[in-house]
Amino acid sequence: MRNRAVVLRHFPAGVPGEGDFEIVDALMPDIAPGQIGVRTRFISLDPYVRGVISGRHLGHRLGLGEVIVGGTVGEVMASNDARFAIGDWVLGSGGWQSFWAESSTTLRRLDLKLAPPSSALGVLGMPGLTAYAGLIYLGLPKIGDTVVVSAAAGPVGATVGQLAKRAGCRAIGIVGSTEKARLITEQFGFDAAINYKTESLSTALAAACPRKVDVYFDNVGGATLEAVLQQLNLRARVVLCGLMTQYNQAERPSGPNLGPVIGARAELKGLVVYDHFDKLTHWTALAAELINNGTLRYQEDLSHGIESAPSAFVRLMRGENVGKALVALS
Amino acid sequence: MRNRAVVLRHFPAGVPGEGDFEIVDALMPDIAPGQIGVRTRFISLDPYVRGVISGRHLGHRLGLGEVIVGGTVGEVMASNDARFAIGDWVLGSGGWQSFWAESSTTLRRLDLKLAPPSSALGVLGMPGLTAYAGLIYLGLPKIGDTVVVSAAAGPVGATVGQLAKRAGCRAIGIVGSTEKARLITEQFGFDAAINYKTESLSTALAAACPRKVDVYFDNVGGATLEAVLQQLNLRARVVLCGLMTQYNQAERPSGPNLGPVIGARAELKGLVVYDHFDKLTHWTALAAELINNGTLRYQEDLSHGIESAPSAFVRLMRGENVGKALVALS
Repeated sequence: MRNRAVVLRHFPAGVPGEGDFEIVDALMPDIAPGQIGVRTRFISLDPYVRGVISGRHLGHRLGLGEVIVGGTVGEVMASNDARFAIGDWVLGSGGWQSFWAESSTTLRRLDLKLAPPSSALGVLGMPGLTAYAGLIYLGLPKIGDTVVVSAAAGPVGATVGQLAKRAGCRAIGIVGSTEKARLITEQFGFDAAINYKTESLSTALAAACPRKVDVYFDNVGGATLEAVLQQLNLRARVVLCGLMTQYNQAERPSGPNLGPVIGARAELKGLVVYDHFDKLTHWTALAAELINNGTLRYQEDLSHGIESAPSAFVRLMRGENVGKALVALS
Repeated sequence: MRNRAVVLRHFPAGVPGEGDFEIVDALMPDIAPGQIGVRTRFISLDPYVRGVISGRHLGHRLGLGEVIVGGTVGEVMASNDARFAIGDWVLGSGGWQSFWAESSTTLRRLDLKLAPPSSALGVLGMPGLTAYAGLIYLGLPKIGDTVVVSAAAGPVGATVGQLAKRAGCRAIGIVGSTEKARLITEQFGFDAAINYKTESLSTALAAACPRKVDVYFDNVGGATLEAVLQQLNLRARVVLCGLMTQYNQAERPSGPNLGPVIGARAELKGLVVYDHFDKLTHWTALAAELINNGTLRYQEDLSHGIESAPSAFVRLMRGENVGKALVALS
């Protein structure tokens, strides 16, 4: 057994390229007292990692030569804690490598009867919790509201739209391809999809939201946020979750004019999912139930082998993935 | 008796000039059934009027030749409603003219024992209510919080700072002159003043707010808003009240980068004072009590004669007024 890892080779300028990463042989991790050794089965690829690389993500910054960070799911290979047995499936933070060691206090054991293990990195895990906590606790959707979400085919956006439907709302998704537009309307039950690459956002939004926008769950910022702010209903809630449009920019760009926020008496609320981990157990159980009864669906964008992680991440940063971006290791 | 009025002569390009207004002889107003005829004593000059002129204020737009809108205080000259007697002082919406007629249902009688009548246009009236409702109901100040307000020497800002002090907070005001800085620290009890014209906002804010910013009451937008957002505490509240920096611009400029709002899990809340008129009676009584016991102060910037209204408004739009801008008519 040998460990293979993906490390940072260059700080990317703009959208990362595969050459900014390097695949290296790494030592098998030491398994200290209280730690568990895990063989990686799935690596989560997430947009926030771009912020970690550039030092913008809540103070973390990755150094050159360091293993790229990320959530991971795997099988226990060695255990220094009796509560974890060889063969258990666990969720942790191994990063982009084929083996990792982690304290038993931060690992979470997965119940495979509940849902497939990879879903712990997507709809049952951090992206799903982001959607649930942001929509329900910040967005405060009410029956009859119109809920708009950007990056709507991603694991956060797709869950936001389906939960909005479940809460009795009209769900509109903004996406970047016809394939994603079809996915969210045909598979995820959105009432309408807007392809911002081929349609005028303002015109399409006005058509899709005849009663304007009560909740906007923003994963992108930029021109999309600016356009939606101009269609807010009185007392609308805007959940600020991500700024995909600026993750690859060296300088932080300016933002939207806030005049429409005053006119609508709207609220813009910053969301950081870490604040909502108290709701994770509840969400995991609820999501599993909804998945098993067929009312919550999810899509995964699987790449295979640790060597595919850089190219899959580049695709994610270009918005070319469809569904939750994962690397599967055999 | 003849009525004199100020009407709109040109739609201003940028900061209005006196030549954009014209002083004309107007007919004495007809006093219809149910209406009251009033001789104007004080005219309120307000920044929102710039938005009415350019059609940006909640859908209102002033036409050429129309009397400029504004709150007014005056003495009843003729009454078609027994509840108003000749000589009563009233608050209404007469605009920039020396006589007006208004329905008795929208006029409010003033109690001169409570406070001087001009204060009904300032601290006891709409600007004071703006400060009170915005700070207390949207800003949610807690003991020990740091409250920052821009345009701090104006009638809204000065009241925000004094109410913040009363709520047990640290109050920091951003102003545009040393005279205003002195006014708010020496007369209004602010803990510190920052002159954005002579100091680096970011450096001065960091120095004045060692525990960062919990509540920011924004009257200006622009670079000031951008700078304060970068110093927000976790769960800070930002009250979006005005956009003085853009009222004179033809195009709506872009706004602040919202990354720091996410990082701070902050909330930005649009404030329109009209939503809070249910609190006006309470505020008027409270403000009068605070004024009479010396814990709430206010400053008026008085011009004299209807002919002075255009130049006083131009001074207001340039930030050259100190205190609530009023025109006094004899």
